[in-house]
Amino acid sequence: MFPGLGKDVSMKRVYLDHNATTPLRPEARDAMIAAMDVCGNPSSVHAEGRAAKALVERARAQIAAAFGAEGADIVFTSGSTEGASLALAGREIHGAAIEHDAVRSWIVEDLAVSLSGVVTVPDPENATVQLANSETGVVQSLPAGLAVTDATQAFGKLPVAFNWLGAQMALVSAHKLGGPKGVGAVVLKRGTDLQAQIKGGGQEMGRRSGTENVIGISGFGAAAEAAAKDLANGVWEQVKEFRNILEMALEAGSKSTIFVGKDIERLPNTLCFATPGWKGETQVMQMDLAGFAVSAGSACSSGKVRASAVLTAMGYDEGTAASAIRVSLGPQTSEEDVLRFAETWLEKEKKHRARAA
Amino acid sequence: MFPGLGKDVSMKRVYLDHNATTPLRPEARDAMIAAMDVCGNPSSVHAEGRAAKALVERARAQIAAAFGAEGADIVFTSGSTEGASLALAGREIHGAAIEHDAVRSWIVEDLAVSLSGVVTVPDPENATVQLANSETGVVQSLPAGLAVTDATQAFGKLPVAFNWLGAQMALVSAHKLGGPKGVGAVVLKRGTDLQAQIKGGGQEMGRRSGTENVIGISGFGAAAEAAAKDLANGVWEQVKEFRNILEMALEAGSKSTIFVGKDIERLPNTLCFATPGWKGETQVMQMDLAGFAVSAGSACSSGKVRASAVLTAMGYDEGTAASAIRVSLGPQTSEEDVLRFAETWLEKEKKHRARAA
Repeated sequence: MFPGLGKDVSMKRVYLDHNATTPLRPEARDAMIAAMDVCGNPSSVHAEGRAAKALVERARAQIAAAFGAEGADIVFTSGSTEGASLALAGREIHGAAIEHDAVRSWIVEDLAVSLSGVVTVPDPENATVQLANSETGVVQSLPAGLAVTDATQAFGKLPVAFNWLGAQMALVSAHKLGGPKGVGAVVLKRGTDLQAQIKGGGQEMGRRSGTENVIGISGFGAAAEAAAKDLANGVWEQVKEFRNILEMALEAGSKSTIFVGKDIERLPNTLCFATPGWKGETQVMQMDLAGFAVSAGSACSSGKVRASAVLTAMGYDEGTAASAIRVSLGPQTSEEDVLRFAETWLEKEKKHRARAA
Repeated sequence: MFPGLGKDVSMKRVYLDHNATTPLRPEARDAMIAAMDVCGNPSSVHAEGRAAKALVERARAQIAAAFGAEGADIVFTSGSTEGASLALAGREIHGAAIEHDAVRSWIVEDLAVSLSGVVTVPDPENATVQLANSETGVVQSLPAGLAVTDATQAFGKLPVAFNWLGAQMALVSAHKLGGPKGVGAVVLKRGTDLQAQIKGGGQEMGRRSGTENVIGISGFGAAAEAAAKDLANGVWEQVKEFRNILEMALEAGSKSTIFVGKDIERLPNTLCFATPGWKGETQVMQMDLAGFAVSAGSACSSGKVRASAVLTAMGYDEGTAASAIRVSLGPQTSEEDVLRFAETWLEKEKKHRARAA
């Protein structure tokens, strides 16, 4: 009745779409299962309520430590999309068209973007700039005093400390670093104004009402802690090496492919490349059938597939933008995974060229 | 470091605060653990994405069946508090002061309430009325054509079919019926306008963006299905009997106690009673120390304890309202549980009277 349900697709397949979402880390899984036995409402004053509250506060401390945000406020949300609404709605904040749609929904979209994806920010106090782009992996240097940064893709993949970023607020999300989907936070310097969007019981110091997602928040905390350990242990250096191996293999095999952001700082796990004349959408479907999960454009938009707004904002033409795909590795990705991907993709690219000729 | 954390408080204690939140049903637990292995983003077009999407759609179908909302739209939210914002913000909807704070945040609060808790609704198309009150359990007859009903406390405890309720929209929440905290839905007649509050990727047919809480939603679906089975099997008839036994025991033992909503239709599990001169807050703490979890007023407000706004809206004076507590049973509550509660509470009430005399 529901296609795909119950089938274990992860065993033989290669998942290379970690910027869309990541597998749940074992530490997050364990924390969530443990939280399932704590039945109280964190707002209740009795023992059951206090036990639930303690889980939420433990996760808050774990996230503060992992994100270098000790002393900052952490307001739990249902994810970065809600976080963007909370941090940006009604504020006339300026931003660029390479931001995620969740951010673009609330900004004055007038900041310029270079061909390498760098945003010019004339007035940081009224601007938002993402720390890393989800499609290209391009990392921005944030100007001091920035109002808001979307750190969703950077948190867990780059050594980031909120207290040193210079931004007033940052958006983060659990499911990009091995936590569950549907949980995130707005991190903000203590004392910063934040107008509640969701009102009611006054949870999260009145900034975001609603009974807390205790199980999800517990998973977020554990995942953030584990992600910080991975970072400290150099796991992403290894990931970067495999990403570079993949890039070199593809570059060697396909002369017409453009590698986006190749010469500037990128996330260690992300590879975005366009092969003009071959639709990204088609590539994703062909690779899916061959056992590889990758994406064209952002995943966060109900199955819709279109030319990447990020690439057009960077100055690429529609045709090039529509032929881009994103491969994003995770801590579990092996060298074999990327080599198999390269081999399969290059075969298909060759066939495509033969058909097109 | 975090008081209460890791202690198993559920074993020897009696949890009688099911209107604040409920223990996770085993069916919900199993569904959530199974969902932990599905790593895709429901918006991704590849196999992993489709598998995640299938989980969300299965839960949507389960909730539609359990809530008698086949053919209606179900928009997943992070709970009824977000649902209230989504359904009510910016709409000038009229309501009464007995509504939950999440609803009260958005309404024109001018509908009259009788001493028995019944709301008068002159213009249903521009009004909201809760189906059942969280503090008193009082059940309302909804007028036809009502704009919005908060069905959070009723769903799972009363045989309710959205398609027969006559309301355009209803708010429901997973954690009141054995699902996880932090998941809910707005249910609405197909074709009803609903202005998105959280915008971005366009999930939930553009009505609520953000990557779906796949694990939580899976738990909601399974819990709703299990709750509907319980209802059909008469589980709440048994709960009602125990609630009535409790009420009779307390009534026999304490002459000065007022039982709210005694003579009208109430939720089968809820007992709200005021003992003028003895603060509800004090009662809750004393009973907590004695091993019983109950509440004074609504739980959904960061540990704040004050006179019940619901009771004052019904016309009770501040002193009476401040002396009320709520005992709410669940499907697992036993006759022994309620008899032990009655015995302990009556002892404490006797001591209170002795001190006060």
